[in-house]
Amino acid sequence: MSTAPAFAITPEPPYYAVIFSSLRTEGDNGYGNMAERMVALAAEQSGFLGIESARGVNGFGITVSYWASPESIAAWKADVEHCAAQEMGKRAWYEHYEIRVAKVERAYGEPAA
Amino acid sequence: MSTAPAFAITPEPPYYAVIFSSLRTEGDNGYGNMAERMVALAAEQSGFLGIESARGVNGFGITVSYWASPESIAAWKADVEHCAAQEMGKRAWYEHYEIRVAKVERAYGEPAA
Repeated sequence: MSTAPAFAITPEPPYYAVIFSSLRTEGDNGYGNMAERMVALAAEQSGFLGIESARGVNGFGITVSYWASPESIAAWKADVEHCAAQEMGKRAWYEHYEIRVAKVERAYGEPAA
Repeated sequence: MSTAPAFAITPEPPYYAVIFSSLRTEGDNGYGNMAERMVALAAEQSGFLGIESARGVNGFGITVSYWASPESIAAWKADVEHCAAQEMGKRAWYEHYEIRVAKVERAYGEPAA
């Protein structure tokens, strides 16, 4: 189990969310190492606010990354190393994925922060 | 494994997403049955577009439900049976949860629909 906290600590809205839903292929094929590297690299990007991720035993997973602006999302999408990972994702790691870019308007939780 | 499709089939944006991130308590405590019932009940609501869900073995999960409008989200939040489930969630099922309501502005995937 990772020692990273599961919940992202995000500021008051508005901010942006990238909802990445995916079904993994069988086998690792270098996925684990690259996924860790991508999280570390994302966290270095300007405008990165946090990330949350869950994957069930059926191979279906959801990762939500949070960003300060559409510009910070566009810059991350265009990052050279991230582009290589995206290409490997299409070729080898994901049977299917869907990406939705959304503007977070309201947020609340329990226990309250 | 559920026979329900993992990916939500959503229309062209804009629409809304409710991102529900949660850490489960130990034990079932009636959670499994209620979770199934809530998915079925949500699917009957006006404005419901779909739902995606993943939970890892560490107990952390993300469920994203998709809705046509803020009004449809508000009506679902106020549903009597759903309110009872929300109360049980706070008391028994979740150590911690965070809810973010977001407007989906763009969406794309592979293989393309």
